Amino acid sequence: MSVRVEHDLLGDCEVPDAAYYGVHTARAMANFPITGTQISRYPEFIVALACVKMAAALANQRLGLLGSERANAIVSACAELKSGLLHDQFVVDVIQGGAGTSTNMNANEVIANRGLELLGHRRGEYRYLHPLEHVNLGQSTNDVYPTALKIALQFAVHRLQLAMAELVSAFADKAVEFGGHLKMGRTQLQDAVPMTLGQEFGSYAVMVGEDSDRLGEAATLICEINLGGTAIGTGLNTHRGYAEAVCEELCAATELPLVTASNLVEATQDVGSFVQLSGVLKRTAVKLSKICNDLRLLSSGPRAGLGEINLPAVQAGSSIMPGKVNPVIPEVVNQVAFEVVGNDVAISMAAEGGQLQLNAFEPIIAHSLFESLAHLTAACDTLRTRCVVGITANVDRMRATVDQSIGLVTALNPYIGYEAATRLAADALSSDSDIASLVLGRGLLTASELERILTPQNLTGPQHGNS
Amino acid sequence: MSVRVEHDLLGDCEVPDAAYYGVHTARAMANFPITGTQISRYPEFIVALACVKMAAALANQRLGLLGSERANAIVSACAELKSGLLHDQFVVDVIQGGAGTSTNMNANEVIANRGLELLGHRRGEYRYLHPLEHVNLGQSTNDVYPTALKIALQFAVHRLQLAMAELVSAFADKAVEFGGHLKMGRTQLQDAVPMTLGQEFGSYAVMVGEDSDRLGEAATLICEINLGGTAIGTGLNTHRGYAEAVCEELCAATELPLVTASNLVEATQDVGSFVQLSGVLKRTAVKLSKICNDLRLLSSGPRAGLGEINLPAVQAGSSIMPGKVNPVIPEVVNQVAFEVVGNDVAISMAAEGGQLQLNAFEPIIAHSLFESLAHLTAACDTLRTRCVVGITANVDRMRATVDQSIGLVTALNPYIGYEAATRLAADALSSDSDIASLVLGRGLLTASELERILTPQNLTGPQHGNS
Amino acid sequence: MSVRVEHDLLGDCEVPDAAYYGVHTARAMANFPITGTQISRYPEFIVALACVKMAAALANQRLGLLGSERANAIVSACAELKSGLLHDQFVVDVIQGGAGTSTNMNANEVIANRGLELLGHRRGEYRYLHPLEHVNLGQSTNDVYPTALKIALQFAVHRLQLAMAELVSAFADKAVEFGGHLKMGRTQLQDAVPMTLGQEFGSYAVMVGEDSDRLGEAATLICEINLGGTAIGTGLNTHRGYAEAVCEELCAATELPLVTASNLVEATQDVGSFVQLSGVLKRTAVKLSKICNDLRLLSSGPRAGLGEINLPAVQAGSSIMPGKVNPVIPEVVNQVAFEVVGNDVAISMAAEGGQLQLNAFEPIIAHSLFESLAHLTAACDTLRTRCVVGITANVDRMRATVDQSIGLVTALNPYIGYEAATRLAADALSSDSDIASLVLGRGLLTASELERILTPQNLTGPQHGNS
Amino acid sequence: MSVRVEHDLLGDCEVPDAAYYGVHTARAMANFPITGTQISRYPEFIVALACVKMAAALANQRLGLLGSERANAIVSACAELKSGLLHDQFVVDVIQGGAGTSTNMNANEVIANRGLELLGHRRGEYRYLHPLEHVNLGQSTNDVYPTALKIALQFAVHRLQLAMAELVSAFADKAVEFGGHLKMGRTQLQDAVPMTLGQEFGSYAVMVGEDSDRLGEAATLICEINLGGTAIGTGLNTHRGYAEAVCEELCAATELPLVTASNLVEATQDVGSFVQLSGVLKRTAVKLSKICNDLRLLSSGPRAGLGEINLPAVQAGSSIMPGKVNPVIPEVVNQVAFEVVGNDVAISMAAEGGQLQLNAFEPIIAHSLFESLAHLTAACDTLRTRCVVGITANVDRMRATVDQSIGLVTALNPYIGYEAATRLAADALSSDSDIASLVLGRGLLTASELERILTPQNLTGPQHGNS
Repeated sequence: MSVRVEHDLLGDCEVPDAAYYGVHTARAMANFPITGTQISRYPEFIVALACVKMAAALANQRLGLLGSERANAIVSACAELKSGLLHDQFVVDVIQGGAGTSTNMNANEVIANRGLELLGHRRGEYRYLHPLEHVNLGQSTNDVYPTALKIALQFAVHRLQLAMAELVSAFADKAVEFGGHLKMGRTQLQDAVPMTLGQEFGSYAVMVGEDSDRLGEAATLICEINLGGTAIGTGLNTHRGYAEAVCEELCAATELPLVTASNLVEATQDVGSFVQLSGVLKRTAVKLSKICNDLRLLSSGPRAGLGEINLPAVQAGSSIMPGKVNPVIPEVVNQVAFEVVGNDVAISMAAEGGQLQLNAFEPIIAHSLFESLAHLTAACDTLRTRCVVGITANVDRMRATVDQSIGLVTALNPYIGYEAATRLAADALSSDSDIASLVLGRGLLTASELERILTPQNLTGPQHGNS
Repeated sequence: MSVRVEHDLLGDCEVPDAAYYGVHTARAMANFPITGTQISRYPEFIVALACVKMAAALANQRLGLLGSERANAIVSACAELKSGLLHDQFVVDVIQGGAGTSTNMNANEVIANRGLELLGHRRGEYRYLHPLEHVNLGQSTNDVYPTALKIALQFAVHRLQLAMAELVSAFADKAVEFGGHLKMGRTQLQDAVPMTLGQEFGSYAVMVGEDSDRLGEAATLICEINLGGTAIGTGLNTHRGYAEAVCEELCAATELPLVTASNLVEATQDVGSFVQLSGVLKRTAVKLSKICNDLRLLSSGPRAGLGEINLPAVQAGSSIMPGKVNPVIPEVVNQVAFEVVGNDVAISMAAEGGQLQLNAFEPIIAHSLFESLAHLTAACDTLRTRCVVGITANVDRMRATVDQSIGLVTALNPYIGYEAATRLAADALSSDSDIASLVLGRGLLTASELERILTPQNLTGPQHGNS
Repeated sequence: MSVRVEHDLLGDCEVPDAAYYGVHTARAMANFPITGTQISRYPEFIVALACVKMAAALANQRLGLLGSERANAIVSACAELKSGLLHDQFVVDVIQGGAGTSTNMNANEVIANRGLELLGHRRGEYRYLHPLEHVNLGQSTNDVYPTALKIALQFAVHRLQLAMAELVSAFADKAVEFGGHLKMGRTQLQDAVPMTLGQEFGSYAVMVGEDSDRLGEAATLICEINLGGTAIGTGLNTHRGYAEAVCEELCAATELPLVTASNLVEATQDVGSFVQLSGVLKRTAVKLSKICNDLRLLSSGPRAGLGEINLPAVQAGSSIMPGKVNPVIPEVVNQVAFEVVGNDVAISMAAEGGQLQLNAFEPIIAHSLFESLAHLTAACDTLRTRCVVGITANVDRMRATVDQSIGLVTALNPYIGYEAATRLAADALSSDSDIASLVLGRGLLTASELERILTPQNLTGPQHGNS
Repeated sequence: MSVRVEHDLLGDCEVPDAAYYGVHTARAMANFPITGTQISRYPEFIVALACVKMAAALANQRLGLLGSERANAIVSACAELKSGLLHDQFVVDVIQGGAGTSTNMNANEVIANRGLELLGHRRGEYRYLHPLEHVNLGQSTNDVYPTALKIALQFAVHRLQLAMAELVSAFADKAVEFGGHLKMGRTQLQDAVPMTLGQEFGSYAVMVGEDSDRLGEAATLICEINLGGTAIGTGLNTHRGYAEAVCEELCAATELPLVTASNLVEATQDVGSFVQLSGVLKRTAVKLSKICNDLRLLSSGPRAGLGEINLPAVQAGSSIMPGKVNPVIPEVVNQVAFEVVGNDVAISMAAEGGQLQLNAFEPIIAHSLFESLAHLTAACDTLRTRCVVGITANVDRMRATVDQSIGLVTALNPYIGYEAATRLAADALSSDSDIASLVLGRGLLTASELERILTPQNLTGPQHGNS
């Protein structure tokens, strides 16, 4: 392999001549052989880094701190990254020490070397375009990294929201389809009072929709960036107009409504908005898991379970039990949810571990957030396409459980009182009979009164009084 | 002990005659001997339950479903609870099965029995005022319990926000007091670039203030209630105008801007807003812990540590080391933070475990949230009064570390470049000399240039370019 | 209130004259108003502290470092604490800063003041018997506190193991009682293959029993103490023979097989054995929760659920649904389990936060462990007495689901092959018929062959080949 | 792409003709597009699956249930997998629904198709060697998957233990190297009493060594397998001698002391041993993180920190601060630790979610455990090779802090008493003087007495009394 020699404060270091990354990246690859997964796994993060570097170059150019030729080279290289090129050159491990320095260095080096090519120079000829003195001009890892992270998270949250919106639609469609199917509602797994299957699926639509709204709010919080704060938020080594200029350029590059934090020292050390986002992702995960638990319960059987709905069969369920079909799609969503809750704990610990002017553990925060977002997005998609849209209802079975249910007695409360109704329920259970027969047999209500009380529309909504 | 006999679906049961609670509460006391802590531990919850019962009675009266005499008795009994009376009658365990039914029953019984007294009857004469048929009229545990919980949490969040606001002020005062003290900023525990101690404390003020804002937003989410949904959200057994009427009455009783959820079936089973609140409490905890970690670091010593600040001595630090003073106040705040993170996990698991039309685990959610809120409030108060307000600075020590710091070299970047500055830093370190001497010795800058670059105002903010 | 004046490094401080605690405790009460729960909540901890102080006095006496009169006074006071006296004097908050110093001080002061009384002096006359110079002689909080904690945990683990052993017996009894009841086994909530209800309950017995064994192993690890290490484990200020002597005395006082750690510096800072114990408690909690989830599932109904077993009714289940009975006992166990998992996270964070020669966060570790142990013990007791022993089986319903189950087809695999069996299952499902009818109708097996294959003993164990 | 057509209960499905996997794997690939990471990421798991399938074939052959030709083909195919061939054919996602069915199916299909080749047939000609009827004979996913997982975990734990043993050696070497360097010990970040840097590093060696012992014990627990239990542990469809025979063969294939669980129904649904292993991994992680926190603290500076040790520079620390070197290796270990704690929560939730006869969430348990083990192993290796072995000490700085430390006063306790020592400490602090000067100035001790008391050996171990 052909190599070139670069150097840093540790001395000389060989880098593959074909590489767009340089000495700092090479050191980091050797230092962090942890997961084997490179940051290129998260293309949105690469794009976001490119936006930041592009915005900085344009702001520096505007302020007269960077010549046009170099600025143009940087901007062009960043544009290529934005379009998806050279992502394979982002090779440092997703779990890395150094508060993201290696990721920032990786970006600086790839952009410098690609810029050098565009300027007609060779990779490594940093005197013409230097990774630190030009690409990183007016910047520090400590403002670049979290800013790029926030931008990338906007992209990723947006994708998750799209997947959630489609899932909401799928549930809402089922709510309409199942609107007329009466069934027993259950609390604490015990038969409660009647409802429709449509109401059940309608709840899921509302639930996922609300979570998406909460995600949107959390995303708004991470529109606040600390770019311009440099090392610790004091803005050391920046031009007085830089923070404002670079934010303008960055809004343009990303098409996001970014704002510069009012206190950059605070913003540089604070990872609270990441914790908040993770908390909302955890909420989303927990709710999706609850929905999937329900789907698995309602489809349990086919004969010794609740058997109210059927999930579409998507694969054989067993290597030993012929014909068995399992709720594998909800199950995989459950597992993603557990992972997201775990990631939230990891993020909380990383946040707690920040010290003084910086949180050195932002890389694990970034990794965990990207993972949670990507897996939740995939989970929503597979839940929708391979499960929800194909769910069917066992209408007769549901209706039969309503007719024989003791829970119907609740609807008689207003007419016969709680204590009398309690006795009726006990008798129905011990004599294995149904409520309607007992009521009529005892002459507590007439047949027509009973029929009116037990109509589906009366059972599944507020029913007495004038409407 | 004098007793009276009450009965339920299990048969007869003796209750102390002096007790305002009844059979359902007595059963629950026997069933849940878990923590030994009764729900009276959380007076705000009792007050909130009283508000709900009062509002329901007024709404039922307005709709013609409850006579004035009974309604008045209920309202008067609730007013007593609101004023702090009879809280010792709320005796069920904070950790209980049954989705809060025992708590609701406890409230129904205490209000009924106190109402009976007010009506001139004896406790237990439920034919005149019945815990379920009158006090619980038009209600279910499944709408009463979460509604009361949300109201109580509003009160508790508000108290925490007050404590946080005072803590913000204390930090802000210190930021002003320490505004002129130059010190080294640190990233990754390594000397970085200069800042002022005022900037450091100012960050804490901003940080705590932002968390309080987030708490306010989370509290807004729990203004949405499901009262009127009864058992599963379908509103079974309610008058068509009830949900609206009871919400109006409840807003009046609590002076809170409560709103009825648009989908009560969803709202009855969904605990997402509790998960969200817990997530924000966790964020707050994690940030407080970070601040306390910093305070402990900055005050480490007195001689073999950083020694930049002094925390007030509040107790002897050691049973063996005379004169030792420890950062016990930040330490107790750290521990509260760990507890809050743990509670968040418990809440997440409880939320995930909800099934179908209800989450049976709301009691542990309630307990964990109240505990987190109460302990965080106490932690903020003790942190402020026993630590922050008495912190002093070791001005000379901080200044000396700036003067001898190698981190000053960063400020020279714009004048001599990153690579030259790197060599200078290495030389300073290996020769145990300071940056200024080396720069002057080598003639890199003149003394006046150097002095201008290294003035405190230039070192602690954006410094070049026209302002 | 009559007071006496004591002093410490902060100056004078009034203490209630009736109090056995002194100035250090009084300071701590003021400093840590966090939970309102005093350490007397954990009597086993008080007893363990008394054992440590008693052993230290005896060892110091043996080594000639403490006169007999004082030693006797200390030993007598400790004996009173062991017998349960004066526990109300242990008043510092369960969540406290200072690495347990306040708890140790509280013990030193109570023992000194009670010893003074026994010697004929007045409380506070420390020149005769000093909390630090005599009661704490040769000790530091940093070896006393974790040692006492480990002893107390032994007691608490033992109690939990007793509760678990009784729960194991209850499940084992049910396994015998239900040994002959055939039912469908379920995997992934789908009908799988037959088993007996006895096998189901037998699994729970084994499961809880194994967890108890693991707890015993974890308890063994905390028999290793660091007493004699004093402040940081170097044994500063101890006599060379002290560590050995005090361990001997402590084994005698506690009747536990305690051993002194071989590296006291390590043992003083390491809280790994607490983390391990918590991890095993979490395992226990998670498994109990799984069992309770199963009990709730199997008893779901009464008519629209699985309905295989009936849990004893222990209270009315609903304030609105007459006759409803809920699985409130398993539900409360679930919630304890969630709390224990949360506590484990808090403990993990506290453990991670230890710095250098000590972990300052041992109080929250202690509190969380005691809470987890106490609540799990209560949960096992209430689960056994109020639920498991009263469970009954719905034999006919279980048998009917076996007869109509498609899962029976698995037993035919060895005779007709997986692929043919798959087709048979599909046909049974689509034609709503049972497996046996199809097999006979198609002449795949003779009636006698089929009967042999489907006997209960063949269905619930390895069945072919010679036995 | 050339394809072949296979079928399952859903109908026909095209599979790439070059693929060794078949229809079940193809369905799973489509169903679980979650992480993009295939199970081949964990080669030890593939090897373990091969061992299980090999053992089953040999046991079935021995029992006369499988012909020699087919058995030989299976064994040969498995041997190839053990040697690392065909791992790229294990393509299902690491996060998958179905309790591991897809992983088992993937193994069955790859082995069948490779076996077919070895027998001279074409891939897909399953009539000669069938994935389910022959390769999976007498097995179920529900016994194969957890058994293979346990075997693979043994391998992975062993690798981690090797890495830990080397780390122990590295710390122990440093303990010897630094044995004579006196320094201040610190508790609660405050100066405590003296110790040697060797004692500090010796603690780390002991700590990591103990964790490795605990891991070994946890690994022993997962030597208990449930192979032979088939679908739910009843052993349906197995020969009576099968469980014993297959365990013997599996011990031979893996060279592990595996044992068959005594209650296979329990063993099939119980994931307690995985929870326990994860708990011990969490312990290990938390302790490693504590050590790394210490290393970062002790090396803080270079000038405004503790500066007691120097970590080797492994990369430039900053993109803006020239010459800055950061503790990037400890930082990456911290982050792995946070991830492991998070994984433990995910595993706990997955374990809690098991229902009835099976835990459907074993895939996320497997994934999380493999990830934790792999990342901890990498973390130990990089911590040792890139950090610990190169650590150097700043001997003079450490010694100076001892000489000027107030903590020395503790050593005078036995001579002047706690209260007098407290006054001395206060005076030293307020007058900015050192303890020795004050003691001599006040004539409290003679110079020779003082010198004897303050010798390093007296300060760092038990010192008075006869030795």
